[in-house]
Amino acid sequence: MIATALTEMFDLLHPIVLAPMGSVSGGELAAAVSNAGALGLVGGGYGDHGWLRTELDRVRDRTQRPWGIGLITWSIDQDTIDIALAYSPAAFMLSFGDPRPYAPSIKAAGCKLIIQVQDVEDARLAKHAGADIIVAQGSEAGGHGCSRATLPLVPAVVDAVAPIPVLAAGGIADGRGLAAALMLGADGVLMGTRFCASVEAMCKEASKQRLIASRANDTARTRVFDIVRGLSWPSEYTGRAIRNSFFERWEHREGDLTVALVMEREKYRAAVRAGDYDTAVIWAGEAVDLIDRVESAGTLVEQISADAESQLRGAADLIASPSR
Amino acid sequence: MIATALTEMFDLLHPIVLAPMGSVSGGELAAAVSNAGALGLVGGGYGDHGWLRTELDRVRDRTQRPWGIGLITWSIDQDTIDIALAYSPAAFMLSFGDPRPYAPSIKAAGCKLIIQVQDVEDARLAKHAGADIIVAQGSEAGGHGCSRATLPLVPAVVDAVAPIPVLAAGGIADGRGLAAALMLGADGVLMGTRFCASVEAMCKEASKQRLIASRANDTARTRVFDIVRGLSWPSEYTGRAIRNSFFERWEHREGDLTVALVMEREKYRAAVRAGDYDTAVIWAGEAVDLIDRVESAGTLVEQISADAESQLRGAADLIASPSR
Repeated sequence: MIATALTEMFDLLHPIVLAPMGSVSGGELAAAVSNAGALGLVGGGYGDHGWLRTELDRVRDRTQRPWGIGLITWSIDQDTIDIALAYSPAAFMLSFGDPRPYAPSIKAAGCKLIIQVQDVEDARLAKHAGADIIVAQGSEAGGHGCSRATLPLVPAVVDAVAPIPVLAAGGIADGRGLAAALMLGADGVLMGTRFCASVEAMCKEASKQRLIASRANDTARTRVFDIVRGLSWPSEYTGRAIRNSFFERWEHREGDLTVALVMEREKYRAAVRAGDYDTAVIWAGEAVDLIDRVESAGTLVEQISADAESQLRGAADLIASPSR
Repeated sequence: MIATALTEMFDLLHPIVLAPMGSVSGGELAAAVSNAGALGLVGGGYGDHGWLRTELDRVRDRTQRPWGIGLITWSIDQDTIDIALAYSPAAFMLSFGDPRPYAPSIKAAGCKLIIQVQDVEDARLAKHAGADIIVAQGSEAGGHGCSRATLPLVPAVVDAVAPIPVLAAGGIADGRGLAAALMLGADGVLMGTRFCASVEAMCKEASKQRLIASRANDTARTRVFDIVRGLSWPSEYTGRAIRNSFFERWEHREGDLTVALVMEREKYRAAVRAGDYDTAVIWAGEAVDLIDRVESAGTLVEQISADAESQLRGAADLIASPSR
């Protein structure tokens, strides 16, 4: 096992956190990750109360280990926060927006506050907002994010917010990525795309298979899926998805899509229901290159941590005694 | 000292390679890096023969250690390769374009061939072309490159080209980045931006100071500086530079710039001569966040390697004995 400030804070065996991906990280996946000794976060997304209650009931039923929840900050309100807090999560993650209105109630509930940021300036704001953990998310991540890359962002955030523990997110799907994140000064990783291709992920099997078959060059950042779904994402955020027919058709034609919205939205919703991924979105990060099979979440956690441990043990062997 | 396939190949003390940056990595900087026990590459850029001879004379005069040269593949011809090979470099790096026409003569000269790539497919082509080392360069790098991020690109390239040694490039400016690259499976790093802010870099002092004052959010990828300089870069490559007045003025107006070229080019050239960096380009990567002073190149090499060694030694301490 790898011991860091993250594992100490939540009594974990592995410094790995499940990204709270809406429609993917349900109670079953979060519980599986927590039961394996990592930290599962339920993906509460935009804050649908019915969905939240169902999945929070589920995670609480299925694990005795610490688990948490994550929400999209710009989309929620205090009611949503309060519904989630009533389930006594160990961790509460806020991403994409100003966390300050909600930080006090989360911390007053005795819940650890995780704030995800995409640049150094927002990391400083997160520290001032009272974050117990800050996630530095790079542009290679699947789903929503900004433009900075993980590798140079993580050490810059670590320097800016010390001694607050930092997690690396974006581009990490195996033990090498976890070991690298620790060398950058992070206390663990937040992984999304890798857990999309897990048995317990809520998404349809066809989307898991398509994710496995995709390569990083097939992914790109876009707004078209937010536009067709009618979601008012702040302009600084785009989403990394697998390019499909819908993506190719509307890329660089966002204005036209807005005009055609009534008809396109109906077609889009039907495609989501039917699992037609030529139209429906599959969010995925550049780490898809490292993902070749659907695996149970618990096995993933154990294998990634074991591989990272092996990389870390090998680190000392790279240091030679000077002989010249 | 850190021992890898890279250090073994060139008898180095440190697994660090100076990026062959045109107008920055002259003979003096390359020699300083090589004399410190890393590998200095002269930045031959677009292949100006007079510049090349001057700087290759200089590097050969100033170091007895292995050094090399790097050129922009799409811009050069066999004459340029032959001029460089006559100086007996230990390493020859080709970036940005098809290396196959030049690989045989480089290898026939007993020179190690380093090929820089920006995605997994080109990494496979580089292996087939006979590369002795492959550099996986991420989008966070300063200067020319593509869109993939370093952190997920490096392990994917390592898997695709094994057992060819891989170097990580893009976003690395300190010992944490070097240690992380080694954990990703790389055998070393190629660093550019960090060495721009070195005493021996050929660029003007004002550009070094501006680089130090910049933050990653001030950098972005663009074509405007290539257009004004009249350089026919293939469409897949853009350059990461510090945003300045010229950048802001012509961004998203590349067509207008092409129309205004005769007048703008004269003004641009005058700005370069005058060191006016509101107009002239300063290439810089996202690692500028980690750069706060101009330092001698030898000190940088030794400090980065020592810091990486310290991170690697600490890696074993992260592994706890299971107590639960």
